[in-house]
Amino acid sequence: MSRRYDTISFLSDYGTRDEFAGVVRSVIRDIAPHAHVIDLTHEIAPFDVRAGALALARSIAYVPEGVVLAVVDPGVGSARRPIAIEVAGGAGIFVGPDNGLLAPAVAIAGGAERAVELSNADYRLEGASTTFDGRDIFGPAAAYLCNGVDLTELGPEVDPALLMPSAVPLPRHEDDHVIAEVLWVDRFGNCQLNVGPEDLPAAWGSTLSLELPDPVEIGARITRAARRATTFSAIGGGIGLVLDSTGMLAVCIDRQSASQELRIDVGDQVVLAQGSEPGETSITTPVILGR
Amino acid sequence: MSRRYDTISFLSDYGTRDEFAGVVRSVIRDIAPHAHVIDLTHEIAPFDVRAGALALARSIAYVPEGVVLAVVDPGVGSARRPIAIEVAGGAGIFVGPDNGLLAPAVAIAGGAERAVELSNADYRLEGASTTFDGRDIFGPAAAYLCNGVDLTELGPEVDPALLMPSAVPLPRHEDDHVIAEVLWVDRFGNCQLNVGPEDLPAAWGSTLSLELPDPVEIGARITRAARRATTFSAIGGGIGLVLDSTGMLAVCIDRQSASQELRIDVGDQVVLAQGSEPGETSITTPVILGR
Amino acid sequence: MSRRYDTISFLSDYGTRDEFAGVVRSVIRDIAPHAHVIDLTHEIAPFDVRAGALALARSIAYVPEGVVLAVVDPGVGSARRPIAIEVAGGAGIFVGPDNGLLAPAVAIAGGAERAVELSNADYRLEGASTTFDGRDIFGPAAAYLCNGVDLTELGPEVDPALLMPSAVPLPRHEDDHVIAEVLWVDRFGNCQLNVGPEDLPAAWGSTLSLELPDPVEIGARITRAARRATTFSAIGGGIGLVLDSTGMLAVCIDRQSASQELRIDVGDQVVLAQGSEPGETSITTPVILGR
Repeated sequence: MSRRYDTISFLSDYGTRDEFAGVVRSVIRDIAPHAHVIDLTHEIAPFDVRAGALALARSIAYVPEGVVLAVVDPGVGSARRPIAIEVAGGAGIFVGPDNGLLAPAVAIAGGAERAVELSNADYRLEGASTTFDGRDIFGPAAAYLCNGVDLTELGPEVDPALLMPSAVPLPRHEDDHVIAEVLWVDRFGNCQLNVGPEDLPAAWGSTLSLELPDPVEIGARITRAARRATTFSAIGGGIGLVLDSTGMLAVCIDRQSASQELRIDVGDQVVLAQGSEPGETSITTPVILGR
Repeated sequence: MSRRYDTISFLSDYGTRDEFAGVVRSVIRDIAPHAHVIDLTHEIAPFDVRAGALALARSIAYVPEGVVLAVVDPGVGSARRPIAIEVAGGAGIFVGPDNGLLAPAVAIAGGAERAVELSNADYRLEGASTTFDGRDIFGPAAAYLCNGVDLTELGPEVDPALLMPSAVPLPRHEDDHVIAEVLWVDRFGNCQLNVGPEDLPAAWGSTLSLELPDPVEIGARITRAARRATTFSAIGGGIGLVLDSTGMLAVCIDRQSASQELRIDVGDQVVLAQGSEPGETSITTPVILGR
Repeated sequence: MSRRYDTISFLSDYGTRDEFAGVVRSVIRDIAPHAHVIDLTHEIAPFDVRAGALALARSIAYVPEGVVLAVVDPGVGSARRPIAIEVAGGAGIFVGPDNGLLAPAVAIAGGAERAVELSNADYRLEGASTTFDGRDIFGPAAAYLCNGVDLTELGPEVDPALLMPSAVPLPRHEDDHVIAEVLWVDRFGNCQLNVGPEDLPAAWGSTLSLELPDPVEIGARITRAARRATTFSAIGGGIGLVLDSTGMLAVCIDRQSASQELRIDVGDQVVLAQGSEPGETSITTPVILGR
């Protein structure tokens, strides 16, 4: 007997202006009325597999046991495989396209233990189209798994080692600086870097130097001081480097959007170096808050 | 004894930036705690009854048995009637304004069998305002129907033949071309036409010619080649005409927004004709991808 | 034995483009699987405590018994206290930051009867960060309250009289006019004033005069006629002053956005005075509908 799940955590790039996410929920409700669907977000930028993979990775530690349904799928209907991946001795199953979207979250959840290709037509919607696999393949698979259908009923097993990996950029550690990248800009304009506190030398003080893209001259770079802080309020004026809720460092401004004020966005390079000592903050370059 | 429903599928133009949809859900929860509400979408453009009718029509085949609550209601509080319409021997009941919003979906569901005007004050919210019927009339009606209140308790019967119809534009078939219209632009920029595959002559090949509004010169028209494709990926470069997930043909560009690149939007006219044969694709007009 | 709740009404400025609200829902689901979460809205403008307080106040009469979870919290992690407030003999408990966000809704619900500071680490998420109290403190508190944990278990009692109040602007009544302010612009562009019908002299007729910011000359003011109406349709052409669904007066245009057409927004001053009599409407200033 297979395990029955009762929660589906759902992430996609479907947006909410169309009925896509609602239709997938309808299909799930029809097949597995007892399943509770939690929308993580549907506002991943269209086709942005990496942004979806990162959002899922940030969420995964908090997601209840059960099924994770994730769809950011520019190759829908093409050769990329629809898959389901079991993790943690069956505590969770990921359902989605095999395009790297699931990989970071699967890794955080302990790695793929079993995987199948979702090719069994019995568990697809009848008369399936080729452009809406969330409705026709992924949503039904998630719902049938909640009903206790065994993973291996959904299609032939796939070697977990052959699943598509995800390329999350790593920071580079040079002599006296760390070359980082903006991974995520949240609604509040906080700019998460691909750097955790352990990536910075312990000797560095509470003031760092950030080399950023020049907001005025394209291609140029400027240097600004940033204060390490544990809360947004503790930044005071100026720029802060705050340990964010997922354990990474983020470039922040208190009660303002660092992304807007500094004109930095996902993919921009940020170089961190040791700054002047706390006692010398008088030479801190002030933030020029543009509008 | 009347039937008890346990699912309400909810569509509106309330948006999510205000609390409107949440308040309607609160009212439903208060009256019918067992009812499960599925949000189809609340991002129908304000007052756009036709866009709401189309979204509901696209969704309806996937909606579970139960109540459909739809509110796009520029005439709220005026002479237009609040109604409930029973379909499919009671498998479903539509609740909303009698302004054409429900008509296409009701037709797809088999047509109106019984209808009532929601005028019984016992099933309205006490102290109802005249500007938020979703909260005061439609939401409560949907909830009471879930509780097993009979349709005819909600108000006097209305002749289904007298319900407001909806005007969905039909394509025009001329000698050697089909004059279509963009019905819907989705989040990904795919431009659904009011044309299904059966509307195109069987003799036409896999390359079509599309006459579109000129993106540069207002009022002018240009002609472009489009390839028929079953998936977005199969389009390759250029423009595709893809059978979408609702069975209609859509103008698409792989991993890009056809609406943005071609500058076409809902209501624009698209004329389809037979294109050059696949072997002659060298004369295909390339898409100029503007920005 | 403490009361068990089964509904959490949830409002925040988390938006839906990130996974914040979804993660809070996941945490709640994990702790209290029976709890039903209703999203009021998550689209409060970032950091806008007053807008959040007003949205919560507008919703509160319709929210089911249970827990209200509200998070608009620019001071997250700072000295402001995380709190829970009991109202109405335990029919409801508000959970959120003590920054004025909850105050108007608590007042409408009858006032704070008991309050505690959410400092008991047993009911916080382990390894809590300092930047996402919705996930780490508020969400868990709401869920544990649903499980029947007593309010006083969550932390030491706080004197309700010392909770942070909220400053909602009151209208000023002068000799022959009322100085009001736009409190809220909804998705449809209706501009709610901080004025109810009882604020206007009974002698005033159905046509009022509105002094508004000049849409063209910054700092200048212009005067326009407005018709009092009970529905949007009844406005006809021109500007209406409509009793909105929360009992306040709103500046509206039928099937258009008054905010866009008149270029007024939250915080703008609107001065109301007696207008010409209904019989003299020929001198009504027509609205110039810009674009």
